[in-house]
Amino acid sequence: MRLITVSDIKSITQKIGIESFMQKAIDAIKEDFARWPEFNKSPRHAIHYPQGVMELMPCSDNALYSFKFVNGHPGNTAQGRLCVAALGMLAEVKTGYPLMLSEMTLLTAIRTAATGALAAQYMARPKSCHLALIGTGAQAEFQFLATQAVLPIEKVSYFDPDTQAMHKFHKHMHHKADLQPCTSIRGAVQDADVIITATAAKTKNRLLEKDMIKKGTHILGMGGDCPGKTELSLELLEHSRIVVEYLPQSQEEGEIQNYPNANVHAEIWELVNGTKNGRENDEEITLFDSVGFAIEDFSILRMVHDLSNQLNIGQNVDITPTPIDPKDLYGTLF
Amino acid sequence: MRLITVSDIKSITQKIGIESFMQKAIDAIKEDFARWPEFNKSPRHAIHYPQGVMELMPCSDNALYSFKFVNGHPGNTAQGRLCVAALGMLAEVKTGYPLMLSEMTLLTAIRTAATGALAAQYMARPKSCHLALIGTGAQAEFQFLATQAVLPIEKVSYFDPDTQAMHKFHKHMHHKADLQPCTSIRGAVQDADVIITATAAKTKNRLLEKDMIKKGTHILGMGGDCPGKTELSLELLEHSRIVVEYLPQSQEEGEIQNYPNANVHAEIWELVNGTKNGRENDEEITLFDSVGFAIEDFSILRMVHDLSNQLNIGQNVDITPTPIDPKDLYGTLF
Repeated sequence: MRLITVSDIKSITQKIGIESFMQKAIDAIKEDFARWPEFNKSPRHAIHYPQGVMELMPCSDNALYSFKFVNGHPGNTAQGRLCVAALGMLAEVKTGYPLMLSEMTLLTAIRTAATGALAAQYMARPKSCHLALIGTGAQAEFQFLATQAVLPIEKVSYFDPDTQAMHKFHKHMHHKADLQPCTSIRGAVQDADVIITATAAKTKNRLLEKDMIKKGTHILGMGGDCPGKTELSLELLEHSRIVVEYLPQSQEEGEIQNYPNANVHAEIWELVNGTKNGRENDEEITLFDSVGFAIEDFSILRMVHDLSNQLNIGQNVDITPTPIDPKDLYGTLF
Repeated sequence: MRLITVSDIKSITQKIGIESFMQKAIDAIKEDFARWPEFNKSPRHAIHYPQGVMELMPCSDNALYSFKFVNGHPGNTAQGRLCVAALGMLAEVKTGYPLMLSEMTLLTAIRTAATGALAAQYMARPKSCHLALIGTGAQAEFQFLATQAVLPIEKVSYFDPDTQAMHKFHKHMHHKADLQPCTSIRGAVQDADVIITATAAKTKNRLLEKDMIKKGTHILGMGGDCPGKTELSLELLEHSRIVVEYLPQSQEEGEIQNYPNANVHAEIWELVNGTKNGRENDEEITLFDSVGFAIEDFSILRMVHDLSNQLNIGQNVDITPTPIDPKDLYGTLF
């Protein structure tokens, strides 16, 4: 089995460039959403504790099987740790043998941004050049890079109540676009073509109201991604063309959990395979209500598996015994 | 995160001896079954394919979380591969961070044997010295060693339709007991105190009939462990005191799947914590209908985690990023 560590992901992204890595992720996810009916779509398995949640997210087609283990522990940040850490595995359906185990903390951030960008490619106006970012935490740089991969983004206005987080974003991204730090959400979004909300507070927030949003804007609602955690006002939802990943999951976890009668226009795979349009005209407000789906993990795992083979990165580890006689498992101990 | 490979398990078992490793596994499983109500008991997650099945088995108490990924591909043997291969992870509930990833093909064989032995400790007559083994495939040596850890086994009679598998068993175990190869199941079991059935055929078999079994025998039904796969006759079930691991799972996967009205005496944890007796007298036939349960994986993973720390075995791998500022995930790529 191939083992891919954080250092290995760093090697791969440095070798081919983070922009190219992000583009490949967008392409891989697009390719897999286009063949949506071929996938086994299972609900995630979660165990909840007072401190957080531990989840398993399996997914497979007829050739490959993947799962992700991911936690969510809001209190970790105060201890200098990440709230969300993950690892993922890819196995061969034919034999059931594991092919690759990989870090997935970085890959989750990247696949989440790539999925948002894929939606923006279909839902934002093609000439969108002004991005607003609400929240410049761990996810922000990835969201910006992914959006710039699909739209001609030249300007980014951004707001975060944590000024240190805003400085961090500026430090990493100032050479990639015209960056405009803002002192309020309203200020950041007022002229934006595309708005991304990526905040971490585990509450029902109302970061965006309808009167703050100009016509034709595309919104990526990232941070509303588990029960009890939303970012947008109901009025805004009512006036938006809404697209989700997988309706049964989004009704539990997405922005639309507050809006049971939401008229959801499409699941993203229907935009990718051409069944439905992402946008009808330049006036409407569009919303991709993103919560994260197991196919996205599958896509980036198979992409990293291919890249690690091409670039010869990662360590091969003996995770499965290789007895000469398959009935002689005991003999492998000596 | 600590990575434990097949070579590492080999190092640990060679360092402390397979018998001592088995004894520690029995003790760890016993300790955890004794505190059964403290565990989150989840159904396993399975995806079925024409070639086999891929499963995730999660389990946790308030301090540790584990899962096992395991496949079941009967056709693998013909390709010189194992039918069942597995890997497992242990994480800290407090932070959600992974502590250890381990090979679990060998560990599954060992924990399965250890669980059977734990049941035998409570259910077999204490002076049982004659073991019969039906099936001498990949599991056989482990079953014998585990049984010998809890009972004064001096003689093993065994049968397998594959004579090569019988030779393999003899080669590994001839110095540990008086071994008696047999030419039929009936011959192997006729004088046995304890019988273990561990066959691999995915069918409803009737390896053991009631008239083959002498009074007072304890039977460990190992191989009846998934829907459609059983080894014992209904009449034998009707005349046995039956103990299972976890009733809802055993009703789907165990011998009792053929016997919906089975009067199941206990779940094994009730024997361990002293609520119920494993045996009432020296005359009755007892049956442990074993299918494998996630707590057993949890137990052996925490045991291996402790041992790997004590013996300093295994490699530490960077599976989770360690940013200086937890909001600066992007910065860890450079």
